[in-house]
Amino acid sequence: MVAYLRLRFLHLLHRCVIFLPKRCTLLIDHKGPQLKKRLFTPGPTPVPESIMLKMAEPIIHHRHPEFTELFTRVNENLRYLFQTQQPVLTLASSGTGGVEATFVNLFSQGDTVISVNGGKFGERWVKMPRAFGLNAVEIKTEWGKAPTADQILSALRQYPDAKAVYLVHSETSTGTATDVKSLAKLIRENSNALVCVDGITAIGAHEFRFDEWGIDACVTGSQKGLMIPPGLAFVAVSNRAIKAMETSKLPKFYFDLRKALKSYEKNDTPWTPAISLIIGVDAALQLIRTEGIENIWRRHQRLATALREGIKALGLRLFSDSPSYAVTPVWVPEGVEWKQFNKILKGKYGITIAGGQDDYTGKIFRISHLGYYDELDMVSMLSALEMTLKECGYPFELGAGMSAAQRVFAS
Amino acid sequence: MVAYLRLRFLHLLHRCVIFLPKRCTLLIDHKGPQLKKRLFTPGPTPVPESIMLKMAEPIIHHRHPEFTELFTRVNENLRYLFQTQQPVLTLASSGTGGVEATFVNLFSQGDTVISVNGGKFGERWVKMPRAFGLNAVEIKTEWGKAPTADQILSALRQYPDAKAVYLVHSETSTGTATDVKSLAKLIRENSNALVCVDGITAIGAHEFRFDEWGIDACVTGSQKGLMIPPGLAFVAVSNRAIKAMETSKLPKFYFDLRKALKSYEKNDTPWTPAISLIIGVDAALQLIRTEGIENIWRRHQRLATALREGIKALGLRLFSDSPSYAVTPVWVPEGVEWKQFNKILKGKYGITIAGGQDDYTGKIFRISHLGYYDELDMVSMLSALEMTLKECGYPFELGAGMSAAQRVFAS
Repeated sequence: MVAYLRLRFLHLLHRCVIFLPKRCTLLIDHKGPQLKKRLFTPGPTPVPESIMLKMAEPIIHHRHPEFTELFTRVNENLRYLFQTQQPVLTLASSGTGGVEATFVNLFSQGDTVISVNGGKFGERWVKMPRAFGLNAVEIKTEWGKAPTADQILSALRQYPDAKAVYLVHSETSTGTATDVKSLAKLIRENSNALVCVDGITAIGAHEFRFDEWGIDACVTGSQKGLMIPPGLAFVAVSNRAIKAMETSKLPKFYFDLRKALKSYEKNDTPWTPAISLIIGVDAALQLIRTEGIENIWRRHQRLATALREGIKALGLRLFSDSPSYAVTPVWVPEGVEWKQFNKILKGKYGITIAGGQDDYTGKIFRISHLGYYDELDMVSMLSALEMTLKECGYPFELGAGMSAAQRVFAS
Repeated sequence: MVAYLRLRFLHLLHRCVIFLPKRCTLLIDHKGPQLKKRLFTPGPTPVPESIMLKMAEPIIHHRHPEFTELFTRVNENLRYLFQTQQPVLTLASSGTGGVEATFVNLFSQGDTVISVNGGKFGERWVKMPRAFGLNAVEIKTEWGKAPTADQILSALRQYPDAKAVYLVHSETSTGTATDVKSLAKLIRENSNALVCVDGITAIGAHEFRFDEWGIDACVTGSQKGLMIPPGLAFVAVSNRAIKAMETSKLPKFYFDLRKALKSYEKNDTPWTPAISLIIGVDAALQLIRTEGIENIWRRHQRLATALREGIKALGLRLFSDSPSYAVTPVWVPEGVEWKQFNKILKGKYGITIAGGQDDYTGKIFRISHLGYYDELDMVSMLSALEMTLKECGYPFELGAGMSAAQRVFAS
């Protein structure tokens, strides 16, 4: 009997070792049934579960009434998002393709455009027009600093024939916001230049009023404030911009906005649209209308402020002088090694953030609060940040960041 | 007691009328709990359920190892799909954007390219190069007819400096297949022109061997043989094509394939990729590898043949002289009105097909068998076709089409 029990015990032990499901390893390593993942990157941003499931429904055809009905609603709600009565064109491309569409449709070879370069994206909007033979005048600002009225005015005086000024509303690489409202007014009052805005990480986070502010072209992407996966760009165009298309001589076909405008009038697209993503945008825009665009701007401001108060309470330094409500860059504190820090944050807490780019690789990290986030997400983020910093040997009082954030929420 | 029962009966009756779920209306109108929908269009094509759910998983970031690992596998499997060792570049755009990328990267203003126009897409590949200042020589073929060797040879003799010949492997608007293998050989033997192929509805349906056949550029889209929603284009490029990029002077940025090639080497993309669609392509390519590309070509030939035998057995006439394995266009029979026919097919049987385009609107209809289809799908399609034709008053023997298809399957 004893021998039998012993055998049975050994047999069971053997089973436990051999058939131990993989999940069990995770149960030992982490604090849940599996490592729960949280995305805090400024694009892609988390997609609401209800939208993921909507996009997983059987595909529909784009030249049939069910799509036309949906796309009509999308177009109406996009106008609401941009606060405009003007057309907002949907392109199957990343945001970069949307900005290219503004360059190739509004200008001709040799035209002068003024472009603010204060980070990776601003830099791209200088290189891009040059690739098309435009004379791109660069206003370079230090990373983390927004362009000033003086800089814009001086460029406009130096290049009075400038056909446009390009502004980046929220520069993703530096988490820096530009005062588009004031600068647009300034440009309008002092020139005939079109006001073109990279609103890629700003739309849905920062107050933006296309018509009221006198903007001529504004671009956003689907994987930002719109909370769906990447693959769509949206371009709002003013009547001045539409007029500029008549004389533009740069060659174009796929990104020909006159073709897009013609289709738009019938709530259609010139080429096959990215149907599943448009179904996602439809669902996202309904969520946005339900919450209300002004409430969404306020929520982003509130979350950004709380996160920053939390970060400051830990003794960390913020990177930007003019912080964006979409993303917050933070200096990696002295004594903390970025790679180790990021490894713990991701491996132990399942949190994906963005690192610094170019000269700031390893020197700053960027936490996004753009799109589908709430107060508890900010607390979770700060909690993971605190525990990671503690493990890296950085000295501070545990809980200080979270409490500071809560004080903002409670106020 | 009687009064009580009467009251109870009335109460129940009331409930039945008031709370009759909407679904019951459908039960009366149709033959299932709701109208089951079946898509038989040549793009978008049906998305396998397993892929829909895969794409609905939480989004991942594209500059992190989990995406790189996935995209490395995608790139390897795309080379298998195109039967090549050359790079296959993934762009966030529709197929039209992919073809534009070949024009703007391989040529310069004033270059001559020969383009076969035998339908809506061939027509587009004549208009597009002209928009970029290329000298596009058009070989026009009647709709439903493939270009002949003589036509290609004569154009090459007339334009010996032609930099490329563009062929449409499967012209979607006419369901017509071009013998790309033979024509590529002919072009190679008689000129230095690059062989560029619109493989948008052909890849995954027709035999295609990029390396063996000496193709220089081939484009497909995601919503075709790849069975996922639209929004991605794929461009395979030969070494001759890569060499041509060095001298091409057409302006480009978003579609700059040299940038794409540089990123490709690191299994990356220059701009934000359409992540969820790439996750779908990854799953689709795994299905494709499991089935085997040659088996997939055979399946498409088999389904196309069976459907056509079924259609002929009903006394209907096929439109194309050189039928594609991706889509079958059929003449609307005399005495049948297209709109009524389509309304019954869609409203009563839940089947979406494509109509004719341009001069053939209302005169032909197109049934797709491209992608995620099997034998029973063809039988279902023929069954709906038979019942619809019967309702339209078209005379034939019920079951004749389905039986003819089955005979092909049984052979």
